[in-house]
Parts: sequence; structure tokens; C-alpha cells
Amino acid sequence: MDSDFHVKPEIRILGIDDSALLNEKVMIVGTVFRGGDWIDGVLRSEITRDGLDATEVMVTMIKNSRHHNQLRVIMLDGITYGGFNVVDIEELYRETGLPVIVIMRSCPDFEKIRSALNHFSDGEERWKIIKKAGKIEKLITGRNGTPIYIQKAGIRAKNVEKIIHLTSIRSSIPEPLRVAHLIATGITLGESRGKA
Amino acid sequence: MDSDFHVKPEIRILGIDDSALLNEKVMIVGTVFRGGDWIDGVLRSEITRDGLDATEVMVTMIKNSRHHNQLRVIMLDGITYGGFNVVDIEELYRETGLPVIVIMRSCPDFEKIRSALNHFSDGEERWKIIKKAGKIEKLITGRNGTPIYIQKAGIRAKNVEKIIHLTSIRSSIPEPLRVAHLIATGITLGESRGKA
Repeated sequence: MDSDFHVKPEIRILGIDDSALLNEKVMIVGTVFRGGDWIDGVLRSEITRDGLDATEVMVTMIKNSRHHNQLRVIMLDGITYGGFNVVDIEELYRETGLPVIVIMRSCPDFEKIRSALNHFSDGEERWKIIKKAGKIEKLITGRNGTPIYIQKAGIRAKNVEKIIHLTSIRSSIPEPLRVAHLIATGITLGESRGKA
Repeated sequence: MDSDFHVKPEIRILGIDDSALLNEKVMIVGTVFRGGDWIDGVLRSEITRDGLDATEVMVTMIKNSRHHNQLRVIMLDGITYGGFNVVDIEELYRETGLPVIVIMRSCPDFEKIRSALNHFSDGEERWKIIKKAGKIEKLITGRNGTPIYIQKAGIRAKNVEKIIHLTSIRSSIPEPLRVAHLIATGITLGESRGKA
């Protein structure tokens, strides 16, 4: 765990979002932020729609990045990317050495997810990865009292809160994810839209 | 001209950069900024490598954007995009109603440009557009004394300076262009690199 983890104002954070499901391959976009206000780099990779390669692709994208050594934490927008491509956050943490914070605008409906997974021959495997991501906690961000929901790997709740407060300066969603979303939708659709 | 132009701290600026020349079609990326510190949207379009459609594509991209009414000024990184696709900044100003500021890290070598244009059957037309962009002025940005070079359409020098000082907070290049460059290189190459 993160016993000596220290949240500096310019802590380097990688926020990852995916783009619209237009093709078999779905673009994922990573933004490297210093704290909440300075974007330092942009990463891009592709995962398979409804595939199971999201974890591996993210690990490779991060390890190949020249920002890898400076990064301190990864932020994800939920754990399903590109349809039902579920991210194993424990493995992402283990393979990159970087703690993972998962942010959700609403609490996932596990009944619905479970039943959707019945359509996958490897639905059981995906369900295990989802359960492994652990307890979902509700967090009220300082901003406007809007609750968000979080999961985590390799980091204490107190540090998650610090990082979220530091970076949620424009909306209830931390800047690395808000901007990754703008880029992913803007590039694939021609103009950014909606919320991360 | 901009007799009643007022530079507010949150003035909406569109910065446009192009990406690497990998294909016949070259991606251009627009970032919508509020002043120097808040990215509000991302636009994407394509121009033809060495074509003459950059002005028209930019006009369409801007007019179709839901940010159009809020935008107050356009920033360009030089006036040649996607190889030798030259932007007619007077026309861009006229067609969008938005003043244009062109930023360059170094003073263009017109001898070299002129001679490169000899390889184009419509080199004379491109040369006219380049000359029409007007006088190049040197500007020392507050930041670290690094000079940049500018051209403009539809805006006074005093307002250009105000906008550049407001937005050049991370480097000698204004944020809308610095971030457009990070996105354009990151998306096409997999990881952002170099300077706008």
C-alpha cells in the first residue's frame, strides 16, 4: 500500500477515457496532468470493442510513455471501456506500479451488468474482474455537493480524497478525466460533447 | 477593426494546430479555451496535405461548432498547415467574424518559402496569400524574454499583446496552441512530443 505516498500540488496524474463505439477498435486517450491545472502530455491507444485487452493495452501505453517515471497515479472513468472491455485495476496497479483511482458519476447497476454479461461466452471471467475491483465508495466532492463513486487499488481512501479535491476544480469530475473525455469525443466525433 | 474589443480574463479562444504529415489527409485540432487556463472543448477536422483547402475547412469547422457564438478570437501556429496548405487569415476573419492572431516561434524564411513554392503549379496564388497576411512583428512575452513573431487580422496590436500575455502562462506559446499541439501529436503518434 501507499504508506509513503505524498500528494503534492503538482502530482503527475494519468486520466484515461475511451471514445465513441464507432468501430471494432476503440480509441482510448490518456492525459498527463500536473495536479489539476496543467496538461503535460497526451497518449493514445486502441482497444477492442467488447474485447478483454483493455488492461494489457493500458499497461503497455503507460510503460512505453516517457512520462511513466513521473506518473504517480492513474484515474479511470469506470472500469468498463470500449463496451464491455473490463479493466483489472489490481493488475493495472501491479504491472505499472501506479495506484489506480476509479471515478463514476453514478453507482453501477450490478444486476444490469451481470445480465448483460450473460451474452458473453467469457462473462464469468469478466464478472470476476468486476468483483475484484472491490467496494464502491460514495464521495462528496468539495465543489457543489455532487456525489461521485469511487473504487481504488494500491492507495488509501485519504489520499484518494486529497487527489480528487485537488483536481476537481472545474466540475465534479477531476480534470485529467474531464479533459481526456473532451479529447476522445472531439477527435472521434469532430466536436467534443457530454461529460466524462 | 476591433474598436470595441474587450479582453476579459475568460475570453474564449480557439487555438488550431495540425498533426504530423502521415497521410494525404492531415488532421487539424482546435482547442476552445477560456483565457489561459480552462479547456472547454476540442474540435477536429481534416485538410489536404499540400492542398489549398485549409481556410475553407477551418471556416466550416468553426461555423459548425456550438462554441462559435462564444468565441472571440482564433490563434494559428503560423499560416501554413499540413505541408504548404496556406491559410488566408483575412478570409478566415471575414468568414467567421473572428479576429485572427498568428504565432510563430521564429521569423519565417521567405526566400526558402518562395523557392519551395516553385514546385507548385499554383505557387503564385499561395505566395499572394502569404504576402497578404501582412507584416510580421516581434513580441517579447512576459514569461522568460523569449521572442515570438506574430501576424494578425481584424485586431489591434495592443489587444494581441494582452491576449498573448493572458494565455502564455506555461511557456512562451499561448495555452490554446500548446495544448492543440499536444493533442494533435499525441493522437496521431500515440504520444505527444515537441513544441507547438
